Amino acid sequence: MQIIRSIQDMQACSQRWRQSGLRIGCVPTMGYLHAGHTSLIDIAAKQCDVVVVTLFVNPTQFGPNEDLARYPSDEAGDLAKCEEHGATAIFAPAAAEMYAPDQSTWVDEAALTLGLCGANRPGHFRGVTTVVSKLFWAVMPDVAVFGEKDAQQLRVIERMVRDLNIPVQIARGPIVREPDGLAMSSRNAYLSADERARALCLSRSLDQARQLFAAGERDAEALCCEVRKTLASADEVDYVSLVDEETLEPVPGTISRPALLAIAARFSSTRLIDNLILRDNQYPTANTEFPITN
Amino acid sequence: MQIIRSIQDMQACSQRWRQSGLRIGCVPTMGYLHAGHTSLIDIAAKQCDVVVVTLFVNPTQFGPNEDLARYPSDEAGDLAKCEEHGATAIFAPAAAEMYAPDQSTWVDEAALTLGLCGANRPGHFRGVTTVVSKLFWAVMPDVAVFGEKDAQQLRVIERMVRDLNIPVQIARGPIVREPDGLAMSSRNAYLSADERARALCLSRSLDQARQLFAAGERDAEALCCEVRKTLASADEVDYVSLVDEETLEPVPGTISRPALLAIAARFSSTRLIDNLILRDNQYPTANTEFPITN
Repeated sequence: MQIIRSIQDMQACSQRWRQSGLRIGCVPTMGYLHAGHTSLIDIAAKQCDVVVVTLFVNPTQFGPNEDLARYPSDEAGDLAKCEEHGATAIFAPAAAEMYAPDQSTWVDEAALTLGLCGANRPGHFRGVTTVVSKLFWAVMPDVAVFGEKDAQQLRVIERMVRDLNIPVQIARGPIVREPDGLAMSSRNAYLSADERARALCLSRSLDQARQLFAAGERDAEALCCEVRKTLASADEVDYVSLVDEETLEPVPGTISRPALLAIAARFSSTRLIDNLILRDNQYPTANTEFPITN
Repeated sequence: MQIIRSIQDMQACSQRWRQSGLRIGCVPTMGYLHAGHTSLIDIAAKQCDVVVVTLFVNPTQFGPNEDLARYPSDEAGDLAKCEEHGATAIFAPAAAEMYAPDQSTWVDEAALTLGLCGANRPGHFRGVTTVVSKLFWAVMPDVAVFGEKDAQQLRVIERMVRDLNIPVQIARGPIVREPDGLAMSSRNAYLSADERARALCLSRSLDQARQLFAAGERDAEALCCEVRKTLASADEVDYVSLVDEETLEPVPGTISRPALLAIAARFSSTRLIDNLILRDNQYPTANTEFPITN
């Protein structure tokens, strides 16, 4: 497994693979890998000849009061996991390699980023779309895999790829959960034992919504209301939103198309997100069996 | 010479060329080609195995009160010129192929675009950087050639390429002028005989500045003042600016590094630009002999 630190080396590698006709998969991460990340590596490995995992804690997607300084890292552990799951190469540039001090070009998505996490984290998605653009120009993958836990990010990336003609197929990796239901996240490492116990309200609230929906509940406000009740054990609820699965626009009243129930809540200073897609067989859907788009 | 209308076909073509180890040159244009454009095709042909000329009048770089509706076009003439100068393929997509009705992702440069034309044409450079990003993802060139007449655009593209890690070498094509000095521009077609005669004040004002500079004048305001006097035959002067050649920041007082003297003026409703680089041998410069950067 190669470890690549410079953009130029990464591009040279990628160029060689492409000229050999190899299919390149990419899994962009901020490191501190867990089973959610490794499931994405597995998806890439299944579809591609070579897999590049990127490890880069992207400073431009953190707000000034966010957790950049304390974001957990464990490069040795990450490398071992990547190797174990069959990664071909790691692209782990330093921040100075990725951003010039006078960087002044940004990629910005201006519709899907307005609500949900975008409303609470100004500049966050501009950082995400910019760094993913840069990683795509560096790695030149055929396929890139993103996790469904970051539901809004996934749709923003899919939109960016469409809007900029980027010839990268975006594959969606299902949410991976701890045995008790908590969605895997590098930020779970911040939680105290008490917070960890209370954080279960996230997945529980979504389970309840799933059951209500299965029992026929289609009223958006009724579902959100139940979710909010269960989230009462959080220290603060950032949002509980039922939005159109594709446009991320709030569902007005009754659900009649595939919808995304997205939640964000804080436990002390740790902010966690989770989500659930609500669809029934009557809705016009695509990719329900095989979660790969583009 | 191939004529390609869809992004997918363009990408497939480019992919085949790359796998064959061919070096791809790209000349992005809005069509209505003149000798300035064909000089860029010649530069690309000299450096590359295949040359793609893009013909696309990009709606997103025109302001609501600008000349999108009347922008001149002559596809048959353009194709003949491209063939004559050795282009391998033309990429000429329709507007609907390039932009989805709900396009929401933009590439934005936020430093070099603030002054000069950027100050007078809000949104213009966002349209340019976005479409050039899209063209680069479609054509995947090794080299792209841009003319020095659009001096600010050239530097904005160079900055974008650096900031987004785009593995495309940007080559600069020198300004091509009519025998009497007027810089070639598709917009010259708008000029009446009287306006055409008056438009000569653009190149004449720069000639005077060149002579004054050669004679030792280093005071920015003195040079700009002389240029403004000569531009009195224009109907309106948008700007006369002496800026740092690299950062495009105004030169305060005395010129001590390579500088760009950039001008924009209107003749009736036709807006024309021109520019001149001022450097002497004492300045630290690069690429003076061979105008290719990246």
